[in-house]
This record gives sequence, structure tokens and C-alpha cells, in this order.
Amino acid sequence: MLLFRTLAIISASGVAIAFALALAVAPVQAQTEAHSELHSTYIDRAGAILGHALTSDTAYETLGELCDQFGHRLSGTPELEDAIDWCAERMREFGLQNVHKEKVLVPTWVRGEESASIVVPRHHELTILGLGRSVGTPTNGIEAPVVVVDSYEELEAIGETAVLGKIVLYDVPFTSYGETVAYRSRGASEAAKLGAVAVLVRSVGPKGHDTPHTGALRYAEDVPQIPAAAVTVEDAERLHRMVDRGTEVVVRLLMDAQTLDDSVSYNLVGEVVGSELPDEIVVVGGHIDSWDVGQGAQDDGAGCIISLDAARIIQHLGLAPRRTLRVVLFTNEENGLRGGEAYLAAHEDELDNHVALIESDTGNGLASGFRLDVREAAVPEDAEDPEAALEELKQVALANLNQLASLLAPLGANQNILAYGGADISPMVKLGAVGLGMHHDTTGYWPIHHTPADTFDRIVKDDLDRNVAIMAIAAYVLADMPGRLIPRAR
Amino acid sequence: MLLFRTLAIISASGVAIAFALALAVAPVQAQTEAHSELHSTYIDRAGAILGHALTSDTAYETLGELCDQFGHRLSGTPELEDAIDWCAERMREFGLQNVHKEKVLVPTWVRGEESASIVVPRHHELTILGLGRSVGTPTNGIEAPVVVVDSYEELEAIGETAVLGKIVLYDVPFTSYGETVAYRSRGASEAAKLGAVAVLVRSVGPKGHDTPHTGALRYAEDVPQIPAAAVTVEDAERLHRMVDRGTEVVVRLLMDAQTLDDSVSYNLVGEVVGSELPDEIVVVGGHIDSWDVGQGAQDDGAGCIISLDAARIIQHLGLAPRRTLRVVLFTNEENGLRGGEAYLAAHEDELDNHVALIESDTGNGLASGFRLDVREAAVPEDAEDPEAALEELKQVALANLNQLASLLAPLGANQNILAYGGADISPMVKLGAVGLGMHHDTTGYWPIHHTPADTFDRIVKDDLDRNVAIMAIAAYVLADMPGRLIPRAR
Repeated sequence: MLLFRTLAIISASGVAIAFALALAVAPVQAQTEAHSELHSTYIDRAGAILGHALTSDTAYETLGELCDQFGHRLSGTPELEDAIDWCAERMREFGLQNVHKEKVLVPTWVRGEESASIVVPRHHELTILGLGRSVGTPTNGIEAPVVVVDSYEELEAIGETAVLGKIVLYDVPFTSYGETVAYRSRGASEAAKLGAVAVLVRSVGPKGHDTPHTGALRYAEDVPQIPAAAVTVEDAERLHRMVDRGTEVVVRLLMDAQTLDDSVSYNLVGEVVGSELPDEIVVVGGHIDSWDVGQGAQDDGAGCIISLDAARIIQHLGLAPRRTLRVVLFTNEENGLRGGEAYLAAHEDELDNHVALIESDTGNGLASGFRLDVREAAVPEDAEDPEAALEELKQVALANLNQLASLLAPLGANQNILAYGGADISPMVKLGAVGLGMHHDTTGYWPIHHTPADTFDRIVKDDLDRNVAIMAIAAYVLADMPGRLIPRAR
Repeated sequence: MLLFRTLAIISASGVAIAFALALAVAPVQAQTEAHSELHSTYIDRAGAILGHALTSDTAYETLGELCDQFGHRLSGTPELEDAIDWCAERMREFGLQNVHKEKVLVPTWVRGEESASIVVPRHHELTILGLGRSVGTPTNGIEAPVVVVDSYEELEAIGETAVLGKIVLYDVPFTSYGETVAYRSRGASEAAKLGAVAVLVRSVGPKGHDTPHTGALRYAEDVPQIPAAAVTVEDAERLHRMVDRGTEVVVRLLMDAQTLDDSVSYNLVGEVVGSELPDEIVVVGGHIDSWDVGQGAQDDGAGCIISLDAARIIQHLGLAPRRTLRVVLFTNEENGLRGGEAYLAAHEDELDNHVALIESDTGNGLASGFRLDVREAAVPEDAEDPEAALEELKQVALANLNQLASLLAPLGANQNILAYGGADISPMVKLGAVGLGMHHDTTGYWPIHHTPADTFDRIVKDDLDRNVAIMAIAAYVLADMPGRLIPRAR
């Protein structure tokens, strides 16, 4: 039963049939055999890409100039727009075709002046970064006693009596980004429901050096919008210790943050047009916007340059993939995701022609493979058992991806997993497109994520060059190989 | 010859004679034998001290309250004076005798508002901390092109033509504090000699997270005093990269820094009065002032509490040392050393009665032993060959200290070396007193030294408790044992 359904699903591609058959019957041995065909077809070209990537300075220099010339690039700033135009010039210089910008209206959140300090029992400045999308305080600030909780459970337990009129501090140690970010995203509204007047959130990341991490919050509907700022781990723990000793601690918070009218920004697109199947598309990309601190070097200058340089190398080597390789530098990932949504709106009619969308947006640590993201919408509408069909589809796609990955084994990047692909590509993935997220080593990423320390000096050139090679080889083979990872759903 | 001179020098102490003889004849074996006497005399008391230190929360809680209640404690602030009074209360509470303050006039350097930004080619804020003792800029700031050098040699090589009217950035990577701090201390005056209008110094420490390190500078006489600030490693490297690409970079620096009239502060003194030789003194101490960032937790709250708690434990256990154990919390180490100088002025008549002065001022990393600091003035005036006599004196003192260290072997703290003891005790050491610096593991210290990240949360309780035990055992045995490390010089 498994065998037949799998066969039916992938019948559009001869190579894929062989892979899937193999998968269903005897995965390991069959993968090895199947490897050999794809492997022998592409190993020389993969070698040429790798050799060029490791001997070129272009990716490193381009990222350095992007970071140093424009610095951080928040939606609504001239730095972002100038950086987009500068990247367009690089695309043309690198020989990409159809270089153009696609208009996107983006939120314009402005931090303004901000500060916080303990005022009782005695004055001490706190190191803060207001959270993106937060409202500001009244002009004369908010001054209130602090209550500290270490979870939503504790917030619930102490309840409205303890919270009303107070500033709530969430002192929640970092476990994983996916888990801990819930306090940054929802903390303001959860506290506001109980009558809090403002929120401080322990920075979402490992302890740095009095390093605040900004990032977006999301206000719930029908709950008062209260100001929210990240404090450093050091300050969060200090406030927590003081309150634990029984000290009444009063904090004064001043934030001029406001959201202005939307600004005009752009997704930037450039292509290596396919030689045989130009309407079929492999997207590679990252987001060109950043938070308003540091240089947005790893979040996500790296992802943009990894994508751009992958296309440059394929173009430079004259590899002429059969399908179109499309570089997309998305705007406004950080505080809106308007870039990803606008790409979908502009390209929905060709969505089924997207063979895959590959995103790099977790820094510049050496990638160990890709996170494969296949959703319900990828299952054919007439599937008997959609849930089982999705599971099979995922396994087929993963098996097929693993064939390709044999070419990445010399780079140690052949460990693919099933997981969330990335934010920018998610609107397309939700509608059935195959998403691939470069699975970077994030050891060095979370400590500097959304902080003033996301700077170019932390970019390891050798890792960048290898990531470029990984992206270029994967994208090229996906754009050139006979079949698709999965067939069209509709 | 060596043997006889050594004998002569240490004849004041019977035990010391045995040590020194041993040293001259067969160091290793003799040390082992000599160990056994001191060791068997004190091992039970050392065990009692250790056991109490490791099972007590007092040191950790006292340091936490000091840091959280008063925060940083720059000379001239009420925080410093309130912290001194609070420590005096702790001394009394712990049963110390003769608790009193000794008046010291200290410099009053005020940072004021400060900021710096790249203004050409486009605006970017820089993260700075003005250097202590620096003059401010004119009210409207200083705006000038940046020249970057990586050494005094390069500054000399580019010369006045390149430097005149510019802001000089020293982008000198951290090697060791002793080596790299030269650019913070002298950089302003060296650049001013060539006509620079201001100086930026790459922070003296390993790279943090956009973390500036402040610290004092020293202006040379007869050279214009120009403003100087530390920039972060990230910003230093960014400016360096930009200039290396041929970009003209103009920076705007604003500093309100000024030096006001001296303030009144105090050295804090408390004692466990000696039971047999109360006029002979072992000093233990650290400095209670700090820079105006972070909490001065490791620089040098830790050293103060290690010293204070060592005395508390000796008092608490009723160990009644023969000599007096004196805790001194020095004021104004950071930007003046007035505390150490004032202690000398107040106690010079009893300086020869100081058996040793032990300082802890390199953080709270686990100590591996002590840095023994013996200078020329310790040599008797009638020595035939003062240089040789000093060398012998050092070796005798080290050998004697190593006997004591057998008691610290269970703590891994028996590795003594000959090196600089510490700043606060240096005025006394220069005049012939024996200095001992707790030799802390500084791996975690230099990254946060003089930064906003010198906070209590980084204090490892187990290390603190062990350091207290090491200090208490060493100080107690020095205060109680029959002989001295070296005899009186005069």
C-alpha cells in the first residue's frame, strides 16, 4: 500500500520514481545506488562550484561592504532602501537577469528615545531595548513597582491582585528560541489582561555581556496595548534577586516608540534564467531588513549574500541550469513579514512552478544540511488519507533530498531533517510549495541575535564560503536535475 | 656564600632558619620535611576554616547585597560612601574590633553625557565609554576624520602630517592586560604630541558583545590634554575596515566629562586583634570603589568580601591569631590610588610591623596561589650586594610561603609565583613590606573588567567560598606562625 501510493505521487519524475521505489523497499542500499546516478552526473559541477566558492573573496567582501556601508536596516529607513538598491547593482554586476524590485508596503516602527531605571530603593540605570511594535509610554514615563515571574503559570498563579498597576518582569532563562520567545511575543498582552501597566522581558538568548536582545511582540486583540522592553539577563536577575530579598523595587520606564504610516519598500529579485524550463523556479533568498541595532550581519545579511553569491557563482561558471534560479532578497521579515506575503501575492499564479524555495536565516554558522518543510497543501486534493499522504510525501521528499545531499557530503552538509523552513518562505510553503531552510550551526547565533553585537567581525569567512557552496550546489542541482523533490500538488 | 647570607637574613625566626637552610641545601626534600611541622600544627585549624567557608552563605549573600543595594561605586559618589558605611556595619556584626574609617581625599571625576557616531559616510552610533580622568570635549563636540593605527610604532611612522587635526583610533587587539593597557593609559598623550584632537581606544579586553571597557588614562605633562574614549572591539574593527577600504570616515565625539574638586572618602579598617603580638599585623584587603558601570562585583567587590569574610570566619571560630589580622577596604583604587597612599601615610610608623599585606583584586576566579611581591626596600641597608640580596630574599620568602601553601594544597591553591602583588598594597610594598596578591584564574575576568557586565550574577559561589578559605587560611597562618616570611629590613 505504501509502495503504490508513493509511486502514484511521484510518477511525474522518472528519477524520483527510482528514488521512491528504493525508499519503500530498502532505503539505505537503494539510496546508495541512486546516489551514484545523481552523484556521477553532478559531481564535477559540484566540485567546480566548491572550488570557486572557497577561492573567492566576493561573498565576504560583499557582506562586509553591505554591513559597514549601510549598517542596520529597519523597515522604513533609508538605510534599508539604499542597501536594496546597492544589492541590485551587485546583482547586475554579477550578470543576473531580470533584476527588479517588487513594491511592498512595510510597517514603520520607530524606537525613539528610551530608558529605564530602578528608582527605588536607589537609582540604577537598566540596559534595555524596547520590543519592536511596542507602543511608547506617556511622555513622562511609567513608574511602578515590579513583580517578577518566571513563567506564564506563575503569572496566572499570582493573578490580578498582584499584577494590577505593576510592571511585570518575565525572568525566564533561555532554553530554546522557539520556547522562550513566547514571553517576548505574548508577554505584554498576557500581563495586560491582569492589569499590568508595562512589561520587561529578560532578553531571549544566552547571557552575553549586559546585552539586550530586541525583537517583535504581538499584541492580542481586545487587550490594552502596554509598553514592553527587553532587559539584559544581568538586570533581570538583579531585579529578581532584589524582589526575592523582599525589597520593594520601583522602575521608571520611558519609551518614545511609535508606529507611523506604512513605508514603501521592495523585495529585490534577480535571476539566472533557466535554459530549458525557464518557467520552473528554484528560489534562494534571505531577508535584507534587520533590527535597528548592530549591522544585521547574521540576521540576515549572511543569508542574503549566501543566496546572491550562490547565483553569482552559477552564472560565473556558465552552468546554465535547466530551470530558473531566482534570488529573492525579502524585505520586512523582522516586524511584519510583509516581504514574504507580498512575494506570494505577486507570484501566486506561478507558485506551482516553484520547485523549491530555499531560505538562509539563522546566521552564518556552517550548515549541516537543510530543514525540509512540506505542509498539508502539498498533498493532492484527491488523496484518500491526506494525513498519511502528507507523511509519505515528506519521506519521499526527504529521501530525494538525501540523494542530492551526497554531493554535499564533502562539506559535511548532508544531514537533512524535517522541520520549519523559515519565515520569508512560509507563506508559499503554507500553500504547498517545498521549503528548505539552511540548517546553520547556531551556537554563535543566538547569543548575538537581535543585539548590537550582530556585526560583521563575527562572520567567519571560511564558514561563509562553505555556506555559499552548499547553497549553490543544492540550488543548482534542484534547478537542473530531471525530476522534482515532489510533484505538483495541483 | 649563598647559604651564609641567607642564614644571616632570616635569623630572626627559628622556623624560617630551618626553611632557608633547607632552601639553600636541598630545596625539594627540605620543603617536604619543613612542611610537616607547619602542616601538622595548622592542618586542623585549616580544616575548620575550610569546612566553615564551604558551608556558609555569608560571603555570597554579603557580596550580593553589596552589589545590588549600592551598584557601582565610583569615587565621589554617595553610593561609595554608603557602601563603606554598610561594610562597617557588617564588620561590627561579624565581631571585628577597632572598626573605623580613615579619611582620604579622592578625585571626583564625572562622566556626564557622552556619545560618538560616524557622521561620514553615513550616520552610525558608536558604543563608547569615556576613559576615566579624560577631559571632555567642547560643548558642541569634536568632529574630525579618523586615522587608525595598531601600535605606537605605526603612530610614529605615519607622523604628524597624518595625525594633525585628526581623531586617532588605536585598534590594538588584546594580548595581555599588562601589555595592551599601555594604549589606554598613554594613548591620548602620545597622539596629542602629534596634534591629534581626540583619541578612541579599542577596549582593553577580549571581544565581548559590543562591550566597551572603561579605565583610567594618564596625561603626560606639557602635552595638550585631549578627550579619550574606549570603543568596542566591533566598532574599532568596523572603523578600521572602512578606513582600509579607502573610505574617509568622520567621527563626532561628545563628552561632558570633568574633574571636580576632591571629595572626602575613607579607607575602612577592622581587626581581629592579635592575642600575643597585637602590634604585628597581617593586612587583608581589596578596594571598595569601582568604575561607574556594572556593579563592581569582581572589581573589586569580590576582593573586599573575600577579605572581610576571611576575618569573620577566623573570629567566628575563635582562632585568636597571635598577631593582628587587619581588614582594609581601600577607597579610590580605580582613578587615583589615593586609598593605598593614604594607608601608607597613616600607618608608615608601623610599616615594619606589617608581616604581610594580602590583596585580592583580579576577580573571583578560583585562586591557584599567591603572587609574592618583594622589592628592593626589603633588603637590609647594609647588604653587601643589594641586587643579589634581593634575589635571595625573594627566594627565601617564596620557599617559606610554599611551606604554608601545603595547607592550601587541598584547594589547589599552592602554586605561588614571584610577581606584582596588587595596586592598593603597592605603596607599602615599595617601602619594603611583603605583598601577596591572590592569584585568581582570570579567564572570566578580563572579558568583563571595567564593563557594564561586571555584575553579581557572574560570581560563582563555590569559587567565592574557596577563595575565602584560601585567604583565611593563608592570613591566619601568617598571623599566627612563629616566624615571618622575611625578617624586618630596618
